[in-house]
Amino acid sequence: MTSELHDLTAYCPKYEHAMELLGKRWTGLVLRALMSGHTRFNAICNYVPGLSDRLLSERLKELEAEGIIQRTVFAETPVRVEYTLTSKGEELRPVVDALQTWADAWVDASSELR
Amino acid sequence: MTSELHDLTAYCPKYEHAMELLGKRWTGLVLRALMSGHTRFNAICNYVPGLSDRLLSERLKELEAEGIIQRTVFAETPVRVEYTLTSKGEELRPVVDALQTWADAWVDASSELR
Repeated sequence: MTSELHDLTAYCPKYEHAMELLGKRWTGLVLRALMSGHTRFNAICNYVPGLSDRLLSERLKELEAEGIIQRTVFAETPVRVEYTLTSKGEELRPVVDALQTWADAWVDASSELR
Repeated sequence: MTSELHDLTAYCPKYEHAMELLGKRWTGLVLRALMSGHTRFNAICNYVPGLSDRLLSERLKELEAEGIIQRTVFAETPVRVEYTLTSKGEELRPVVDALQTWADAWVDASSELR
């Protein structure tokens, strides 16, 4: 993987904001679910073991408020709601990919099972 | 940036572990400090605004326990202690770079200032 050269010598509030946003419990997994093509509330919820409806709802609202996902309501019967990544959200894919690459290489079975 | 193709269709406990580890408050910034070449406790602490000695100490212990950083004590007077990234830690650089790229592109001044 190519690594861009960033000047990391100074503290960066934008990086801190991004880290806080993505570091919130469940958010990284919700994004991964969306990137894998899940668009419905129940599908996302089922994708993430242990995630409650209440917390998923909260995370989706946060991601929508940040402009990372878009909520679309289709006027059908029953009403259909879909969550999809915006451009801002889609561009998080390299972050998720880089983390997955690292996890595959370095996280072992023993640390998975806690 | 090249993006590796991962199969994201299934939940991955390794990814979840990595996300939980890196998503902990301050950890992403502590890693960024180490990647920028800071090795001393005080230098890392000064790099991250708002981070207390107690929490930095806790985070460094966690990262050491995960094998991401190495703590080296030099028998000098006064004793010198340095924290450096292991190979496992160094390989997190693409994650930090990808997040920085995204933050530079998408995090605006208004969301920095909360």
